[in-house]
Amino acid sequence: MPDRSPSDAIKPEVRAASAYTLKHVAAEVKLDQNENPYELPQEFKEEVARRVVARQWGRYPEFVPAAMTQALAKHTGWPEEGILVGNGSNELLQAALLVTLGTGRTIAIPQPTFTLYKLQSSILQANIVTVPLRPADLSYDVDALAKAAESADVTVICSPNNPTGTLLEAEALQHVLSKAKGIVLLDEAYHEFSGQTALPLLASNPNLVITRTFSKALSMAGMRFGYMLAHPEIAREVHKAKLPYNVNIFTLTAAQLAVERGNVMAQSIATLISERQRLIAEVRKRLGVRTFESAANFILIRTAKIGSELFNELYAQGVLVRDVSSYPMLERVLRVTVGTPEQNNKFLAALDNALPKEVKR
Amino acid sequence: MPDRSPSDAIKPEVRAASAYTLKHVAAEVKLDQNENPYELPQEFKEEVARRVVARQWGRYPEFVPAAMTQALAKHTGWPEEGILVGNGSNELLQAALLVTLGTGRTIAIPQPTFTLYKLQSSILQANIVTVPLRPADLSYDVDALAKAAESADVTVICSPNNPTGTLLEAEALQHVLSKAKGIVLLDEAYHEFSGQTALPLLASNPNLVITRTFSKALSMAGMRFGYMLAHPEIAREVHKAKLPYNVNIFTLTAAQLAVERGNVMAQSIATLISERQRLIAEVRKRLGVRTFESAANFILIRTAKIGSELFNELYAQGVLVRDVSSYPMLERVLRVTVGTPEQNNKFLAALDNALPKEVKR
Repeated sequence: MPDRSPSDAIKPEVRAASAYTLKHVAAEVKLDQNENPYELPQEFKEEVARRVVARQWGRYPEFVPAAMTQALAKHTGWPEEGILVGNGSNELLQAALLVTLGTGRTIAIPQPTFTLYKLQSSILQANIVTVPLRPADLSYDVDALAKAAESADVTVICSPNNPTGTLLEAEALQHVLSKAKGIVLLDEAYHEFSGQTALPLLASNPNLVITRTFSKALSMAGMRFGYMLAHPEIAREVHKAKLPYNVNIFTLTAAQLAVERGNVMAQSIATLISERQRLIAEVRKRLGVRTFESAANFILIRTAKIGSELFNELYAQGVLVRDVSSYPMLERVLRVTVGTPEQNNKFLAALDNALPKEVKR
Repeated sequence: MPDRSPSDAIKPEVRAASAYTLKHVAAEVKLDQNENPYELPQEFKEEVARRVVARQWGRYPEFVPAAMTQALAKHTGWPEEGILVGNGSNELLQAALLVTLGTGRTIAIPQPTFTLYKLQSSILQANIVTVPLRPADLSYDVDALAKAAESADVTVICSPNNPTGTLLEAEALQHVLSKAKGIVLLDEAYHEFSGQTALPLLASNPNLVITRTFSKALSMAGMRFGYMLAHPEIAREVHKAKLPYNVNIFTLTAAQLAVERGNVMAQSIATLISERQRLIAEVRKRLGVRTFESAANFILIRTAKIGSELFNELYAQGVLVRDVSSYPMLERVLRVTVGTPEQNNKFLAALDNALPKEVKR
């Protein structure tokens, strides 16, 4: 291969794309990844470890982890044939895009939203139609979304939306579903914090595909487990793109115990919801800071400062948040994960220190 | 979406594809998945469990698992910037295909080989050029492979090859590399059993991409861990398609300990290599059975019987092997993983019982 660059073999859309990236830095108060700050009980972790040590590590996981899909079927009331498990819900989202997108195919993506949808769609060389949220309150523009869905092979919706916390109500989703030409991929990564789910719409809408994760509310981000709920006919096709043995024995063991026990993290979720509301109220008391409604475990804050500047001032005080100010519509905006009451108080104190004196109080 | 089937949104190439599938059945002697029958030491497993329980499960793994890639860099002598880790090597193979294949792009695939390459390439709507092995001895047809590589964006080679055990020697691989238009994706899943690796060719061939797994020789199939070695420029592009946080904290902990300790499974690998040679010699003593050379931890057997028939007769005796008789060129062929000496003896006894009396001995 003389006189050629090794990356000549790479598709131009890939070369043009920016990688998903996050700089990992240590911080006393870590509010940057929408994790649940409450850890699973020690006894739960030890029980998982005990079960895992008792298994054979040299053997592949089951080809179809039947006990797991059965437990999820029982938990959701959705038939096993319509359930796929994955290495995080990202893997299932990727598999769903793999079987639907390619050259000449179209995906409708709200903006701003989780960047992975666009990155993966670009890699698949699909046409990308972006549907902006309403700038005033960052709510979904339902009519625009339904219109885009009419000619899209895939419409992806994150609800509650990352990074804005925006919820798409059931009625609005039903409207999009009825107009959609293709599948509607609903990422419910944060649904536990919203008190809502589109699960009741699944049976009557065979084009609805829901993904969920154990990484957020269920405090298993280190484990990487997600699942997909879909019409069995769709699940069968997505299954073809999903890699075999994609969930390891440790994650299967942990996720299954979590489903069996039920609601292990329920108390912490209730706390985080109430803390979210307190944070929003507290932030609103401060002059010079704007926030928005959120149905997730994070909030947005906008100040007069450049995003990276405020980010650095908070970080200098030990509080790590996410700078989302380069997202469309989110100029001067930071995303702050809801933490424990103590962590949230530290964030508020750091914010006060960072705000100009004259506009404070 | 009235009057339409939910799977209308799926690409026709996907609908036409057959899923990768394997029926999991229990068996006394499990020789169907090319696993290492020797388990990691109990003390190793307990140390991993201890380390994992001490970690925070609610937090994501590191975005770049630096300690892991550093350990692999030290182990392989290849720079960290050219190393990616994955949820099994399959995930990295998929990511490499994602960034190189699509409509109008071409992959050259030897035949028969691991079915995943073709399935994933079909899903990506690529042109697939198959390059048959030589029917006489199932060896690689190097000239045909080099010729196909001349106009392929990707040439994938599994060496030793699954399911045939065929090795592509370094000189032959170098010939293919020099002719190849695109990247050459070398799946070294079984390299530990061959005593060979293409690692020394990496530095001088920027179009060479090597994947490896801990699932086979290293007895960690339950863990799902693999890595890719590539020119940093290629690695950077493949990284874009790889999902973030794709390797969970348990797998990272286990894989890292395995690399740190070095050669935990070395003794078992030596045993399996010597057992493979014994099995081949034993099978060759039997009239009516043909076998082939193998550089992996499995062998092929061909008899006069229909594949599924012999498979069932072995299974009825508690010995589970893989029926590969529907693969091109492998009519009446079964794949048998090399097990412990006891397992191999049980297989040989079951084979004797299944062979017609008149041709035995």
